[in-house]
Amino acid sequence: MDKKQIPDIAISRLPGYLQVLEQMAREGFGVVSSLQLGKRLNISPAQIRKDFSHFGEFGQQGKGYPLFSLMDQLQQILHIDRIWQVVLVGAGDLGCALGNYQGFRMRGFDIVKIYDNDPMKIGKKTGALTIEDVNQMPEDVKKLQIKLGILTVTQLSAQQVADVMMAAGIRAILNYTGVNLQVTAPVHVQNIDPVMQLLHMTYYLADD
Amino acid sequence: MDKKQIPDIAISRLPGYLQVLEQMAREGFGVVSSLQLGKRLNISPAQIRKDFSHFGEFGQQGKGYPLFSLMDQLQQILHIDRIWQVVLVGAGDLGCALGNYQGFRMRGFDIVKIYDNDPMKIGKKTGALTIEDVNQMPEDVKKLQIKLGILTVTQLSAQQVADVMMAAGIRAILNYTGVNLQVTAPVHVQNIDPVMQLLHMTYYLADD
Repeated sequence: MDKKQIPDIAISRLPGYLQVLEQMAREGFGVVSSLQLGKRLNISPAQIRKDFSHFGEFGQQGKGYPLFSLMDQLQQILHIDRIWQVVLVGAGDLGCALGNYQGFRMRGFDIVKIYDNDPMKIGKKTGALTIEDVNQMPEDVKKLQIKLGILTVTQLSAQQVADVMMAAGIRAILNYTGVNLQVTAPVHVQNIDPVMQLLHMTYYLADD
Repeated sequence: MDKKQIPDIAISRLPGYLQVLEQMAREGFGVVSSLQLGKRLNISPAQIRKDFSHFGEFGQQGKGYPLFSLMDQLQQILHIDRIWQVVLVGAGDLGCALGNYQGFRMRGFDIVKIYDNDPMKIGKKTGALTIEDVNQMPEDVKKLQIKLGILTVTQLSAQQVADVMMAAGIRAILNYTGVNLQVTAPVHVQNIDPVMQLLHMTYYLADD
C-alpha cells in the first residue's frame, strides 16, 4: 500500500468515521451502511465508499459493514492500535488544561511530559504532571523516542521551540500557537486555532 | 452576491489568507502576489486567484494585490470589521483558559459571559469574568443579541446545552466537546477536537 497515493483529504475524514462508528457501537449497532454513516456525517455514501476503497474492501456489496471489524481496521490504518507518548511544551493555562485532558488518554495519547521555560513554573505540579525545564526536552524526546508533540507556547517563541522539537525527533506537532510554522518533511503539523474557526463562521453571520 | 454560490471550502481558506497577510504586513510588505501567498500557505497560486475571484476583482492582472486593501476586503467579507460578543458555556479548565485567551479579543471576539451549572463554580472569578449560572444564559443571549457561542461542557450535556443555546438565538457554535452535534440551519458549528487532529497525524507515523 503506497501511502503517497491516498489523498490527505481522505485520511482527514477517517477519524470522523471512527468517531461516529464508536457512537453507533454505543447505541447498539452491529452493522452499518455507507448511507447511515453518510447521514450522520453529512457526507455522501458514494464518498464514504470511495474513501474506504483506498484501503481495500471492508464489507460486501449490499450487506453493509460489520461495525466492530470496521472500527478495528480504521484503528490499524490510523496507527492507534497502540499507546502514543506525547510531550507538551508551554505550561500556560491552555497547556495545563490540555495536559490534564482525559480525552487524550482515553484515545491512547499519553502526555508524559510538560515543559516550560519559566523558573516560576518549573517544578510545580499540574494535575498528575510536574512542569519540567524545556531545556530537558530534547534529551527526554530522544531517550523515550517520542514522536508526538503539543505546542502551546507564545507566538514569539513558537518557531524556535518547534525547531528544537523537530531536531530532537518529534515528527508530528499539534500547534496551538496561531503561528504558521515552517517545517520540513517528514514532520507533520496540525493547527488548532479557534480564532480561525470563528472567522469561518462569521462569514455566514451576515447582517441579520 | 449570492452566498450559496461560493463553496464553503473556499470560505474556509480565507481566514488563513488573512493570517498570512497580517504576518507579511508586519514584515513590511505592501504588495503581495498569489505566488508569494501560495508559497507560504502551500496552496497553488491558481487556487488562490480562483478563491479571490469568487468575491470580485481585488487586484490588477500582473501587478499583485495591494496588501492593506486586500486585508480590508477580506475582513469585510468575513464580517470581522466589527466586535463580536461571545458567550462561553462550561467553566472547566479548558473553558476558563479560553475565556481568558487574549487571541480572541485581539481579533474582535469579546467573550462577555462564562457559564456553568456547578454551584461550586457559580460566582467565582476567572480572570476578568465571573462564572454565572447557565440558567441565566438564554435571557442574556436574547437581551444582548449574541450570535456566537463556545461550548466546553461535558459530552453528556453537550447536545442539550447546544439546543438551549440555539433556542436562545445563538447562530454559530465553536464546539470543543468532541460530540457530533445535531444542529439545524441556519446554525453553524465548527468542531475543535485535538484528538481527531492527532489521529490524522498518526496515520503518517508508520512503524518508523
